[in-house]
Amino acid sequence: MNEQQTDKAFTRVVALAGGVGGAKLAAGLQVVLPAGALTVVVNTADDFRLWGLHISPDIDTVMYTLAGLANRETGWGLAGDTWKSLEMLARYGRDTWFRLGDMDLATHILRTQMLHEGRTLTEATADLASALNIPSRILPMSDQPVETLVETPEGTLDFQDYFVRRRHSDVVTGVVFRGADKAHPTPEVAAAIEQADVILFCPSNPIVSIGPILSVLGMRESLERSTAVRVAVSPIVGGHAVKGPAAHMLHSLGHEVSAVGVAHIYKALLDGMVIDSLDANLAQRIEEIGIAVHITDTIMKDDASRAALAEQTLNFGISLGKKAHA
Amino acid sequence: MNEQQTDKAFTRVVALAGGVGGAKLAAGLQVVLPAGALTVVVNTADDFRLWGLHISPDIDTVMYTLAGLANRETGWGLAGDTWKSLEMLARYGRDTWFRLGDMDLATHILRTQMLHEGRTLTEATADLASALNIPSRILPMSDQPVETLVETPEGTLDFQDYFVRRRHSDVVTGVVFRGADKAHPTPEVAAAIEQADVILFCPSNPIVSIGPILSVLGMRESLERSTAVRVAVSPIVGGHAVKGPAAHMLHSLGHEVSAVGVAHIYKALLDGMVIDSLDANLAQRIEEIGIAVHITDTIMKDDASRAALAEQTLNFGISLGKKAHA
Repeated sequence: MNEQQTDKAFTRVVALAGGVGGAKLAAGLQVVLPAGALTVVVNTADDFRLWGLHISPDIDTVMYTLAGLANRETGWGLAGDTWKSLEMLARYGRDTWFRLGDMDLATHILRTQMLHEGRTLTEATADLASALNIPSRILPMSDQPVETLVETPEGTLDFQDYFVRRRHSDVVTGVVFRGADKAHPTPEVAAAIEQADVILFCPSNPIVSIGPILSVLGMRESLERSTAVRVAVSPIVGGHAVKGPAAHMLHSLGHEVSAVGVAHIYKALLDGMVIDSLDANLAQRIEEIGIAVHITDTIMKDDASRAALAEQTLNFGISLGKKAHA
Repeated sequence: MNEQQTDKAFTRVVALAGGVGGAKLAAGLQVVLPAGALTVVVNTADDFRLWGLHISPDIDTVMYTLAGLANRETGWGLAGDTWKSLEMLARYGRDTWFRLGDMDLATHILRTQMLHEGRTLTEATADLASALNIPSRILPMSDQPVETLVETPEGTLDFQDYFVRRRHSDVVTGVVFRGADKAHPTPEVAAAIEQADVILFCPSNPIVSIGPILSVLGMRESLERSTAVRVAVSPIVGGHAVKGPAAHMLHSLGHEVSAVGVAHIYKALLDGMVIDSLDANLAQRIEEIGIAVHITDTIMKDDASRAALAEQTLNFGISLGKKAHA
């Protein structure tokens, strides 16, 4: 066994994640880490109710991906899912703008039932993830409600209205995390962060995926004072978001649309940042704000590239930790 | 127009119904009556909660049948339904003894949501039935909970446990309608019965389908004092139940397993009874307890036989009404 492998075997990793991009890196981490070493802390500010069901889009994307059940084409939803329930809901005259698959419905039904019975979202998530034999822990950022609202020239929109129904076509002039001033990280999240050796900011949208996680009471402070190595993977590559509206949102909110812009958003929370080979020219500007940089291919197009990016990111983090303690 | 057609055009019909057998006669009645003339009062004592959803099996069977959407092979559920949600629920380790189809789930989800928002079961049913363009009214017997419990040598069982999970294989030694002493017919049911010209007891199980309807506070009295002609169609043909456990249940509860046994259960509530040609020999014994008899083919194997039985039953009822008023 070489030294890096030994290190990794004793490394407790916390990954902060939103939906698709975060789930992909988490899947790579799960492959390269021993079972139980990975905890994924997931954004819940996109959660909403539809037809009386509690839907947690980011938790589901992470859970389905880590269970190997995700739809590879879309990134969200379950492979092989069908739409019979939705067709019947449409027959009942309901607006079916949010595409819930039949298999997916089972998740929402069981979660809603467990919450209704008084279990927390953390407990409900653990129940479902355990039934799917996921070897990592998936933790909602909070068991208290936080709700992302998106301010646009058309008015303030609920997140799913902005993101799904209106296909993130509105210009975003502001973002509000309603409830964040009253929401605490769960004890499980607090403990995971305290015990972590490496904390990773997945390549999720820094504004509306990682942003809500950082907005929860005391979260930013506990990340700041953490002794773990903290590394982000840039979700912006070559001036574009790998997926979703991150680039447009960074622009309209006055940030530079690049890994540098993302580095400035996280700034004091980061020891290192992984950027794509395409963006090698940005390394120096990120290092100038006190963040170490690792350059590699960051596009996760298949299992191999997920695992490779996870491996690179972990080893980079571990190397930074050694320097810090040297 | 002949006289009978004229009569039928002005006849307000209330059908008391359970599941499959009741739904079939109701479908026949809907075909032969003008739109809006039929009100089906449905047993809700089989209702139960599963995975947090409110399921009303008899209402759904009647609703799907009257919408032309029922699964013709089973009698219950929706034609062309699939089981992807159920497969996923099983994957989550849940016991999937109650077969909920994907399309069927849409019904339970919307009903549960409406009830949760404070609407009554009557309102929720009207919403769903209206979306399916059903030209008849479907009324739950009560908006208050009544729950059929089945006493067996193995102990007291919830109805769905007895009926579905244990496939009605237990000997029934008693039946309890929990909550019936506090449940009232809805105002809609009370008004429909008061305004009815003909009240039909569908060929449903007299103990656990029609029984709960009759158990609701004041229901029996309002049927007794009704000026409508009251006619039952026997669910027992040639000593056997057309479907389900009615024959075994009549036997174990000490009733004669025949149209005569059923006539004795309803007795004071009936003016007439329709029995199958197979049971022509029983006519005299039923007439001896003061109930007029009409003999015809009562097995509803297709749309034509449903409509024919509905037509025969209605005309028999109308003829009895004329005699009464002669």
